[in-house]
Amino acid sequence: MSPTDYPPELSKQEEVYLLSNLKDWSIAHGLAVRPAPSFVQPSQDPSGVLASTAPVTLFPSLFPRSCFDEGLSIQNAYNELYSAIARDESWLKSIVEELVHVDDFVAKLWQTHLEVKKEGYVQDLSLGLFRSDYMVHQDPSQSNSSPGLKQVEFNTIASSFGGLSSQVSALHKYLLTIDAYPNSTSSIIKHEALRQSQSASSLAKGLAAAHKAYGASRTKRPLCVLFVVQDPERNVFDQRHLEYALLEESGVRAFRLPFGETLSHTQLDTDRTLVYTPPNSPSKSYEVTTIYFRAGYSPDDYSKDEDWHARVQLEKSRAIKCPSVLTQLAGCKKVQQVLATPHSPHLKRFLPDEKVASRVLKTFAPIYPLDNSEAGEEAKKLATDASSATKYVLKPQREGGGNNIYRKAIPPFLQKLPETHWPAYILMEMIEPPPLTNAILRNGELQRGGVICELGVYGVCLWRNGNGDNQKGEILENWEAGYLLRTKGDQSEEGGVAAGFGAVDSLCLVDE
Amino acid sequence: MSPTDYPPELSKQEEVYLLSNLKDWSIAHGLAVRPAPSFVQPSQDPSGVLASTAPVTLFPSLFPRSCFDEGLSIQNAYNELYSAIARDESWLKSIVEELVHVDDFVAKLWQTHLEVKKEGYVQDLSLGLFRSDYMVHQDPSQSNSSPGLKQVEFNTIASSFGGLSSQVSALHKYLLTIDAYPNSTSSIIKHEALRQSQSASSLAKGLAAAHKAYGASRTKRPLCVLFVVQDPERNVFDQRHLEYALLEESGVRAFRLPFGETLSHTQLDTDRTLVYTPPNSPSKSYEVTTIYFRAGYSPDDYSKDEDWHARVQLEKSRAIKCPSVLTQLAGCKKVQQVLATPHSPHLKRFLPDEKVASRVLKTFAPIYPLDNSEAGEEAKKLATDASSATKYVLKPQREGGGNNIYRKAIPPFLQKLPETHWPAYILMEMIEPPPLTNAILRNGELQRGGVICELGVYGVCLWRNGNGDNQKGEILENWEAGYLLRTKGDQSEEGGVAAGFGAVDSLCLVDE
Repeated sequence: MSPTDYPPELSKQEEVYLLSNLKDWSIAHGLAVRPAPSFVQPSQDPSGVLASTAPVTLFPSLFPRSCFDEGLSIQNAYNELYSAIARDESWLKSIVEELVHVDDFVAKLWQTHLEVKKEGYVQDLSLGLFRSDYMVHQDPSQSNSSPGLKQVEFNTIASSFGGLSSQVSALHKYLLTIDAYPNSTSSIIKHEALRQSQSASSLAKGLAAAHKAYGASRTKRPLCVLFVVQDPERNVFDQRHLEYALLEESGVRAFRLPFGETLSHTQLDTDRTLVYTPPNSPSKSYEVTTIYFRAGYSPDDYSKDEDWHARVQLEKSRAIKCPSVLTQLAGCKKVQQVLATPHSPHLKRFLPDEKVASRVLKTFAPIYPLDNSEAGEEAKKLATDASSATKYVLKPQREGGGNNIYRKAIPPFLQKLPETHWPAYILMEMIEPPPLTNAILRNGELQRGGVICELGVYGVCLWRNGNGDNQKGEILENWEAGYLLRTKGDQSEEGGVAAGFGAVDSLCLVDE
Repeated sequence: MSPTDYPPELSKQEEVYLLSNLKDWSIAHGLAVRPAPSFVQPSQDPSGVLASTAPVTLFPSLFPRSCFDEGLSIQNAYNELYSAIARDESWLKSIVEELVHVDDFVAKLWQTHLEVKKEGYVQDLSLGLFRSDYMVHQDPSQSNSSPGLKQVEFNTIASSFGGLSSQVSALHKYLLTIDAYPNSTSSIIKHEALRQSQSASSLAKGLAAAHKAYGASRTKRPLCVLFVVQDPERNVFDQRHLEYALLEESGVRAFRLPFGETLSHTQLDTDRTLVYTPPNSPSKSYEVTTIYFRAGYSPDDYSKDEDWHARVQLEKSRAIKCPSVLTQLAGCKKVQQVLATPHSPHLKRFLPDEKVASRVLKTFAPIYPLDNSEAGEEAKKLATDASSATKYVLKPQREGGGNNIYRKAIPPFLQKLPETHWPAYILMEMIEPPPLTNAILRNGELQRGGVICELGVYGVCLWRNGNGDNQKGEILENWEAGYLLRTKGDQSEEGGVAAGFGAVDSLCLVDE
């Protein structure tokens, strides 16, 4: 079988065998989500005991080995880069100042930082559980060129699917072991071509490292990690796998706190320690070492004023934030854009080693601002012209995805938007992934067709900000933490599985 | 807290905390079942991707330490006893002859044996994955007496819940670790009082031992174990956990074969080797070393003549049967009855060591035949008298449960049944368990109240039958293989969780 025929069509019996084994294995190993309301109405299962196989691909998707290796090996540099950005308040300020008038959410985050700064930060350590997302780019006009890795975005908050990713790579390995993949694929799907993602365990080790670095309790309370979450959360098992790994491998307790209930169950104590009182046992409270945000990344999470007070309280606290508000701001698209704008001077500010910087630079797709700079004026021409716009995607500066404008939809979109609001967006050259096929099981429905794959590489970084007068910032821990492959039908142009369009996947390496 | 107040009433917040953690942990760890049709209609989920938390207790149930220890330590003797019975064809014949005219299923099983015997058995090894079920008995008229363990039944085929039992004991341990049990229980629920059941791994090791003992392939095919199953099977994850442990810990491949499709996918080859051809890959067939029956234990599994042909084919084959038809017959209630009939001479036939035999004997509740023997005539008087009948349960000789007649329902039931059919039943003194309370989560509904617990102790036994002329039978492997606690509301008088009445549980040991 040649890669262009991959994956094979399955006979009815092959499909029955593969699917029945996939469905049982996934539930037996927690590769699951709570069912969508469109699949199971909440009234049918008010207590929430039902779960469904998470959206998954039937086959591991083909991925160039050189691109995968490069993605993993460059992650430490990315960790270094973003921790350096998060430590550079004055630089971040210059970026944010260009956004505050057009992006209310960025403005609010910056205000949160200023409010904390006024009182002084009491915690000098920061944790990042990052995920750098890439697509394989192969210039369609040069079919002989070797494929390269191009960054889609860099996530500094709530990088998801680290829990499920470990499970889906184990699933595909299992399906290979039990011969669920037809014989014809044996030259392609081999054990040595599959990669087990250690993301669940490795990210949990990051939380454990922060927990340990926090030191002893100042209030003589037991210590804990706090997962600040959305409620309800369909993707809860993804988060739970991290929590279980943290408990089993490092003996660290964690609690889940819905973001909207923060002020009811936490308070600041001596030396701004953060105290969490579990609602189930009001007499026993915990000192929080580390706040792991799986909420708070989107304006939707701040529906009432109280939610901003909650964020300020958490930021003010002595707990290590994963991430801090400055680290969250470092993840905004504007940062990615100024780094990736051709001839940008910024990258070397943060990555002084030229060799490292040039490797990182190679993973950038050209990104332009939509402002009055020289690059901005060029971008406006590209974006408003119906023919050139087809090579681009327009992205809002803020985190979270789900609002991108693609190709020919860009000119009419901009036409309706006052030009003063254009700087809230960046223009990015479309990455052109090589054509791939796969089959996705989602809500019990099987769909087969052209797909687009996005590689996420996780990174753990723990650093000292050095906000004190004589203290320099320094990185204490820095490691690559496994990978995620997310795959979506190529008719959809959105990325997130949680947003309802894709599936978790694992990779099958091919040599170009 | 005293054991009589156990478990405590939970506050609303305590219940929310315990249940949300229980529901997430159970799905993340495959402590799950496919939902009942009354909960999720098949038309809603035709491809079967939904699963639900298995019916479980919220708390581990209290259990006397001495009874648990005795149950575990006596299991090797029980394995020895039942393997000796299965090897003693002439003795079994005398038992079966009393049943063939009243129990068609037993007659058919015996006929299967005779049919195979005519051609000669080619496989001398037999595997038993047994489960001996007990209740704690405390004479209600003597409240100071120490509790004892009394056997409910001994399962020689399809002993279920070994997969889920490992998970539920881990669940209760997890709930303790995360303080989901209120402080008031701390003197009772302690880590040293909980027992992790190793049943999934230990039973899988039994299958691996048989697989290995089978030896090399005679047909140059790859070897496999065959799980012969019902279809559909809601309790599939229980079985899958054994299959996954078998693959991961011993590297042994297993396939699931719906019993009704046996003749389509298996055939006898050279030396009566059993060859299995997976429908998904007709060109690749396997030689079966071991047949693990999770079907075929009930008349319902034999709806057409072909099903009996299938059973004969499997029995004739060279594969090691778990269990063989004779081992299955050794598990009929009649055998339990003749062993437990007061002053029975049979036990010492199989357990010559008097000390061992007397320990086993102590776990028998008095059981009577309903035939024309002296004990039988006495039993008929007890069973037809409305007042004495309240101390008894009437059980059909055949396996599977679900058809027991209790206490005052016995006399009217017998009245309607021709006396010639009475020998199809045995009369057993009711075991009187001490009153216990627990809460059960089942299909999303929480029920709290009085419960009855049944302890199952698993046993693995691999033996040589010695059917050849000069070969003596001998036991090759014999070990206790973990435990199960099954708990049901005490208003129901049936036992099986699968039958729709109970929950899986784990035990919290208490010293009397």
